[in-house]
Amino acid sequence: MDRLRLMLAYDGAAFAGSQVQPGQRTVQGVVEAALGTLNGQSVRIVLAGRTDTGVHAQGQVAHADVDRVRGLDQWIHGLNGLLPPDVRVTNVVVARGAFHARFDAIGRTYRYCIWNGPVQPPLLRGTTWHRRSVLDMDAMNAACRVLIGEHDFAAFAGDGRGVPGRSNRTVRTVRSAGWMAERSLDDVSGCALVFTVEASGFLAHMVRNLVGSLVLIGSGERAAEWMETLLHGRDRRSAAPTAPPQGLTLWRVTYNEDAEKVPVITTVDAGSVGETSECRH
Amino acid sequence: MDRLRLMLAYDGAAFAGSQVQPGQRTVQGVVEAALGTLNGQSVRIVLAGRTDTGVHAQGQVAHADVDRVRGLDQWIHGLNGLLPPDVRVTNVVVARGAFHARFDAIGRTYRYCIWNGPVQPPLLRGTTWHRRSVLDMDAMNAACRVLIGEHDFAAFAGDGRGVPGRSNRTVRTVRSAGWMAERSLDDVSGCALVFTVEASGFLAHMVRNLVGSLVLIGSGERAAEWMETLLHGRDRRSAAPTAPPQGLTLWRVTYNEDAEKVPVITTVDAGSVGETSECRH
Repeated sequence: MDRLRLMLAYDGAAFAGSQVQPGQRTVQGVVEAALGTLNGQSVRIVLAGRTDTGVHAQGQVAHADVDRVRGLDQWIHGLNGLLPPDVRVTNVVVARGAFHARFDAIGRTYRYCIWNGPVQPPLLRGTTWHRRSVLDMDAMNAACRVLIGEHDFAAFAGDGRGVPGRSNRTVRTVRSAGWMAERSLDDVSGCALVFTVEASGFLAHMVRNLVGSLVLIGSGERAAEWMETLLHGRDRRSAAPTAPPQGLTLWRVTYNEDAEKVPVITTVDAGSVGETSECRH
Repeated sequence: MDRLRLMLAYDGAAFAGSQVQPGQRTVQGVVEAALGTLNGQSVRIVLAGRTDTGVHAQGQVAHADVDRVRGLDQWIHGLNGLLPPDVRVTNVVVARGAFHARFDAIGRTYRYCIWNGPVQPPLLRGTTWHRRSVLDMDAMNAACRVLIGEHDFAAFAGDGRGVPGRSNRTVRTVRSAGWMAERSLDDVSGCALVFTVEASGFLAHMVRNLVGSLVLIGSGERAAEWMETLLHGRDRRSAAPTAPPQGLTLWRVTYNEDAEKVPVITTVDAGSVGETSECRH
């Protein structure tokens, strides 16, 4: 029996999230169906990170125990031949027998993308949140700085645990968080703003909750200092509504064994965000 | 009566091309329907460039004569409120009365995007052509150099006019043509290769026919010199099959009056394509 480590990418639009649910089309469901066919009998997979309905993945990781012996290329091509086009296996390796996709992960990186301009380009409507009013990247990046480190993120937990006092289950360590402006498109007023955040792990809806509040700071409705107030208040009800799912992508999952081969994620601070000036409003 | 100049962006996937056809969903059809509603009576539009079924646009231009007097923001928001989400009006200005979107255009820029790697990321499946074998960007850019200038492009005319001897209707002037590697995605083997070509105008299927032949050069099945042989032979049957539509985007249309405000398009030569080394295969 081999324990396989799979890398998955998917377009979340037509999935009811990553985790199996009865009667729903989920990433786990379609991957397990394809794996079961190739393996000759049913296979369960364990995913490194849970993604909600409509959330995408670029570098999701899963492990699965298979009985059938096949070459790694055979697994990749066989699975992609069986899978629907909105999910792809981008890599398969044989893992240590004790490898656990979820528990061995030491970090997850998410990206959230906003189209900031009067009109959202149609080709980006499935991968960006459209915000018309100009967002101040310096203010949003200033607010990001208070997120770095180990904190109780109860104010940004989407599942109702955001009650002051009950803390340790909502403590996470954020290693980097910041916004960058991606290329602005010729002849189009506006640009893509990308929030990249890496942490030991995330609470349910945490990235989208952070984005919702950061956007209020970017639009000037709140000061950058509000983020610190929210964080210390630990009350979900004080923070902004959750940002919509289509802007979010699980970008990468990191493991200890990757320490030397994965590029170091640079903390984005206000000084490295000179691209702001390229965004034409 | 005002002559409006509209800038349009669309996702071509669900359109049977740009030009009105009976019983088909076309860009012209849906834009004319929305304009007619806002104008109170039917309006015809003239598009700067014809795009085929499945081809996208970022900076398509159209003109239309309207009777109703409205502010430009009212036209933009009114149209976008009526249009389906796969087409957006990104700008509206009042043009000179004699402005003609098609005949006054002095240049069109197209981009064609290839995903070059073993597995195509699902979120890029609607905007890239998937080519697995490693493409040699230096060879493709060397082949591009012979395209620059005024030539008979009969070998790349998709509509059957590619017969040697009948030349002047297939002469076009290519101002720049070249490939660049866009960002490679973390943890994914492969990268996006983008072909940008600007010309006075294009023959039907010309960009996709050029890409089909350039890819044969990139993959080593043909030498870079083959492009010159094709060009001089003026025989469509000698060139490669047409590349699929979803990789193609009408990027920009240029007019004389834009000379000072539109950024100059740099000719991409092999020297500026250092990004090649970032593509990890």
